[in-house]
Amino acid sequence: MIDVAVIGVGQTRYGMFPGRTLKDLFYEASREALDDVDKGLDPNDIDEAFVGTLSTGGAQLGNFAPLMMEAAGMVGVGARHVENACASSGFAMRDAVSAISSGSADIAVAAGVEKMSDLPRERNRLWLGISGDVEWERLAGTNFAGIYAMMARRHMFEYGTKISHIKMVAVKNRQNALENPKAQFRSAFTMEQATKSPNLASPLDFSDACGITDGASMVILARADLARSFTDQPVLVVGSGVGSDYVAIHDRTSLTKLQGAVDASVKAYEMAGIRPEDIDFAEVHDCFAIAELLSYEDLGFCDRGKSGIYLESGITQRDGKRPINNSGGLIAKGHPIGSTGTGQICEVVNQLRGRADTSARQLANVGYGLTHNVGGSGAAVAVHIFKAME
Amino acid sequence: MIDVAVIGVGQTRYGMFPGRTLKDLFYEASREALDDVDKGLDPNDIDEAFVGTLSTGGAQLGNFAPLMMEAAGMVGVGARHVENACASSGFAMRDAVSAISSGSADIAVAAGVEKMSDLPRERNRLWLGISGDVEWERLAGTNFAGIYAMMARRHMFEYGTKISHIKMVAVKNRQNALENPKAQFRSAFTMEQATKSPNLASPLDFSDACGITDGASMVILARADLARSFTDQPVLVVGSGVGSDYVAIHDRTSLTKLQGAVDASVKAYEMAGIRPEDIDFAEVHDCFAIAELLSYEDLGFCDRGKSGIYLESGITQRDGKRPINNSGGLIAKGHPIGSTGTGQICEVVNQLRGRADTSARQLANVGYGLTHNVGGSGAAVAVHIFKAME
Repeated sequence: MIDVAVIGVGQTRYGMFPGRTLKDLFYEASREALDDVDKGLDPNDIDEAFVGTLSTGGAQLGNFAPLMMEAAGMVGVGARHVENACASSGFAMRDAVSAISSGSADIAVAAGVEKMSDLPRERNRLWLGISGDVEWERLAGTNFAGIYAMMARRHMFEYGTKISHIKMVAVKNRQNALENPKAQFRSAFTMEQATKSPNLASPLDFSDACGITDGASMVILARADLARSFTDQPVLVVGSGVGSDYVAIHDRTSLTKLQGAVDASVKAYEMAGIRPEDIDFAEVHDCFAIAELLSYEDLGFCDRGKSGIYLESGITQRDGKRPINNSGGLIAKGHPIGSTGTGQICEVVNQLRGRADTSARQLANVGYGLTHNVGGSGAAVAVHIFKAME
Repeated sequence: MIDVAVIGVGQTRYGMFPGRTLKDLFYEASREALDDVDKGLDPNDIDEAFVGTLSTGGAQLGNFAPLMMEAAGMVGVGARHVENACASSGFAMRDAVSAISSGSADIAVAAGVEKMSDLPRERNRLWLGISGDVEWERLAGTNFAGIYAMMARRHMFEYGTKISHIKMVAVKNRQNALENPKAQFRSAFTMEQATKSPNLASPLDFSDACGITDGASMVILARADLARSFTDQPVLVVGSGVGSDYVAIHDRTSLTKLQGAVDASVKAYEMAGIRPEDIDFAEVHDCFAIAELLSYEDLGFCDRGKSGIYLESGITQRDGKRPINNSGGLIAKGHPIGSTGTGQICEVVNQLRGRADTSARQLANVGYGLTHNVGGSGAAVAVHIFKAME
């Protein structure tokens, strides 16, 4: 297997940009990624591209990947669109890595984009329902908040997790986002405010959920043995794993475990030759605050059922031993569906290179960084592990 | 690079099945593919899946691949949806091949499905427009027939190609389909009938176009060194290449050449270490009859501009030296968008194993078989080359 390295990353600011287009956002992310390749890269040297988006709502566009690559001035690159709901670009990353490690590409692009603000709020809620099981969840009247609320309620029942644990996730991530110039929600947010947030789907309140977000991101990858000709700071992809599960949560054996995340992380750890305790920091998929707690357990950071206590210990705070969602996560950095997976990778790569956008956000201890990207309520999960190239 | 082999293929009949569902079609193709693995395969041993569909029309489904894999009884396989309009499953195949040749999967599935009959005819025409450039072609009032009509008219102008050449493609493919039990259009069709077909978009008539089709197909792949433990007749994937181009035809340098197809085939030939003249038979993307003529030139089977004469010589007939679209092609076998790429591969693999469904259809000379799958009007193209394992 040929080793793969990240040689450049780019991401737009995340937010609601009603006046911007898919192409415009994608272009901006691609320019930043190209500029980020320190020693320069001719777009004509890119062999393949993998573009993640859900985009079956507002933007009904076929040949989506060639269309976006054209907007980025990268015409002629063999490109395809990869869809796995909220894990679309996590899987785009997985397949870009495989393209290089198979030997069929020397340089590949993984990217993602979503434009959610072109639908009214109510339509967005309906649209997002397509990422659950349409027949058995969406048409039965459940939306994603309801699905994650059931997971939260069950976790509380099985393990004694408290509502305050859930709120602590939201407070931590919103505070982290204060220092992130690319985050969507950047206003001070305290536990007191969290307890006053209107109810969304009990036990989840509005402030426990991500919002409606536009944004794009791009990761440029190369064969590791070529990477230093493009940058002095390549970042190795040391682990990559994917997993899937039943789409509807009622078909699964547990409501408090995402088997797809467990499977994906086991494979990624195995490939990297490391264990969960070796991970120094991570960006995890906190579409709802409860999802971050589940991730601590699925990724093996703490024992099953102990995520509330683990969080309470402060270990996942920015100044803790294993900072989680230092970017602000999906809740505060934002969750432009198709962009989220590669957006997480932009954050981890920048941290590993010591290039966080503000010094307040730069982590000190950055050996291994992990990304955890979940599609729907766990139907598909992609986990990647990164390390600066020595 | 690890060699990859096909160990089983399955395909539903193609046709209009208003009472059938996406899941139902996908299940049938998956069962046939599993049954086709002579020595048996436990679905739990499948590592990854790549599922092609356009499906942004009638079926707005996220996490599409896990949903289909669940219907096939293949839950837990790391699965993603690959979209590239009409080349969706050609690219799914490409990425399944990379997953194995990278060493990250031992067994992978490439599949495709489309359910077109759930939209009324007029809606289908509009829906298919999303595979062109929505802003510059679809919204300007052009549909796919119009786009291919412009290519046809230009080919006639530049090279003296005649309307009768275009009609000969349709007649050949419809006659081929007569013997294919899985083809959609199986009624006798003569040149006389072709000349009486109503006009669609001059110079193309209705009989020069594919129809509205439902169907699914699946290809099961394994590391070549493991293949014989699954079947006595593995088929090697000796070549794989993809290419892309501008989505709108007015942005391209030529209306009579698909640069993406040229690029994809050059890469596939190079990987296989062969030349165009080594290909014994092929399934090409004849969404419109003119597209088959262009493919002869893009794939290097004949000189630029000479496809009409090449066809006239009889070489691409079933009893000719290089039969093309022996299955009936998209025009007569059918074109269920997302299924077409892997459906072509089912045909080529069965021919290479001497397992054509009727003896009348079995080709005698089957060294190298090629598939050519085009997305939109050439925005993305996947080419694969196959050979029976010795």
